[in-house]
Amino acid sequence: MEQKTVLTLEEIYQPIQDRLPAVESKILEILTTANPLSSEVIHYFFKAKGKFLRPALVLFGASFGKHLPESAVLTAAALEIFHSATLIHDDIIDSAYLRRNLPTVHAKWNPQVAVLVGDYLHDKAIGAIFDTKSEQVIAAFLQTAGIVCDGEILELNEKNNFNLKEETYFTIIERKTAALLATCLESGAILGGLEIERALSLKRFGTYFGMAFQIMDDCLDFMGQENEFGKTLGADLQAGVLTLPLIRLIALLDERGKAEIFSKVKSGLDSAQLGDLVLLLREHGAIDYSIQKAREFTDRAALELSVFSDTPTRRSLEALLRYVVERNR
Amino acid sequence: MEQKTVLTLEEIYQPIQDRLPAVESKILEILTTANPLSSEVIHYFFKAKGKFLRPALVLFGASFGKHLPESAVLTAAALEIFHSATLIHDDIIDSAYLRRNLPTVHAKWNPQVAVLVGDYLHDKAIGAIFDTKSEQVIAAFLQTAGIVCDGEILELNEKNNFNLKEETYFTIIERKTAALLATCLESGAILGGLEIERALSLKRFGTYFGMAFQIMDDCLDFMGQENEFGKTLGADLQAGVLTLPLIRLIALLDERGKAEIFSKVKSGLDSAQLGDLVLLLREHGAIDYSIQKAREFTDRAALELSVFSDTPTRRSLEALLRYVVERNR
Repeated sequence: MEQKTVLTLEEIYQPIQDRLPAVESKILEILTTANPLSSEVIHYFFKAKGKFLRPALVLFGASFGKHLPESAVLTAAALEIFHSATLIHDDIIDSAYLRRNLPTVHAKWNPQVAVLVGDYLHDKAIGAIFDTKSEQVIAAFLQTAGIVCDGEILELNEKNNFNLKEETYFTIIERKTAALLATCLESGAILGGLEIERALSLKRFGTYFGMAFQIMDDCLDFMGQENEFGKTLGADLQAGVLTLPLIRLIALLDERGKAEIFSKVKSGLDSAQLGDLVLLLREHGAIDYSIQKAREFTDRAALELSVFSDTPTRRSLEALLRYVVERNR
Repeated sequence: MEQKTVLTLEEIYQPIQDRLPAVESKILEILTTANPLSSEVIHYFFKAKGKFLRPALVLFGASFGKHLPESAVLTAAALEIFHSATLIHDDIIDSAYLRRNLPTVHAKWNPQVAVLVGDYLHDKAIGAIFDTKSEQVIAAFLQTAGIVCDGEILELNEKNNFNLKEETYFTIIERKTAALLATCLESGAILGGLEIERALSLKRFGTYFGMAFQIMDDCLDFMGQENEFGKTLGADLQAGVLTLPLIRLIALLDERGKAEIFSKVKSGLDSAQLGDLVLLLREHGAIDYSIQKAREFTDRAALELSVFSDTPTRRSLEALLRYVVERNR
């Protein structure tokens, strides 16, 4: 009966649902350009709806306050644009060809277009954040942008490192994923006028939630159907990125077992070999172990909500924690 | 005897020379990171000294004022970092393997590293601009960042377009090159406390200077020795980017001549064919025509200086105009 308590994203977003269309319009407004190529790429990219998680978190953060100001909508749009810029660049870096069930920008056009349109989105996101006129939000965002990039460079530096430690993996995902999700909640809280202590609780919630979110994302890379997840299965590993399930498996194997995995991965896995690897991950409980880690983070996140009274927004954030460890896409 | 009036950059920079070391230190200070890969790439990139044109223009702009504030040094560093970020991304886009006589970042490491380190520099530059606390400078910079990117996307969109119009070429170079040089002078002027009218004169000077600078850069792509220019000869064309000399040549050729050029360029030019093309450009006066256009822009730039009294800074900017049309690297 546990399943019953897992709501859909649409249900979870209910308290802020009425503001999301304004965020969507704001995104296209910010990105309006006379440049036909940019315009084509932008409309293509945003046509495929993502989870809109970052805008939702900004709005949730703000809706703990007495009012939900227009600047929260602007910030929500800006952070989704920033996130999109990083996705477009990430897909070049990971040579991914599928995102949200559509060819990636660098696959449909070319890496050059992906570099520049990513840069353009990046610039426009920062411009929009600046338009909030909130020094705190601007400062938080600029710091986070550097951290996200730093996390991605760290990840790149650790590619094909089969001795990657869990600790380093956690540092990478905290920077590349959790930092931005934390800033979404923090920015929303600042704009909603929350006291600093409560804004910091939400920021920590965002960090823990983000860690769980990324761990589950990495588990999903080894689970489910290709079209269901909307990305290429095993894509991380094919790109040389080691994630928690594999780090755990490697820690459990003897030298011969490790050597076997290394040589297979290095020569590139075909889908049969990928299937074998997934079986091995399951046999050794590496997926379950990772999901358990994700749950530990959602437990810590849940504790941060204890300072808030039992409002629909708090209940949504709690539901989001359940969603993230149960989701299959 | 004309040659005598062409000063070296070092001579031209004399009025602001004593502040340049502070800019260099500031760049490395802004980019300090615990990330070993980022740090390695950053030190490698900035070890090869560029012309430092953008920092010099910021300082020149500021030195027309009564004082040269510390924020001008910060802005000079930030704009050089921003420019470096665009160079690192450009080199991916143009598949260039040589910059400042050293392998480019994407050639020495890989395109992935180049994408991310470019993003990192981009973020750090914006953070530094924000630290100036000057709303005008921040707004000018953010607008320009968008314009630069837009110009690059436009250029990319026009790649391999053998019917590219001069007018479109001028729009591209105004955005991708001149806009940032203009913003350097404008930002310096704002921080130096100049009246708005004088700041705008310097901004226009920067635009015209920037147009001339890019036209000459494009001419140099077909001139001189590979190692002297520090870049690959004919690199623009090999990457499908049509610049003024070729646009002019194509305008002068008959249909058969055009068709011949198209087919040669499309199949990739070897160095003998590149040599033939250079001869053809010279025979048709396409290089001279382009240099003449550059001179028209420097003439317009010079006029903008008429509102300033005859100070060492003004004389340096005038010398810079002569330098740009006479330079060979």
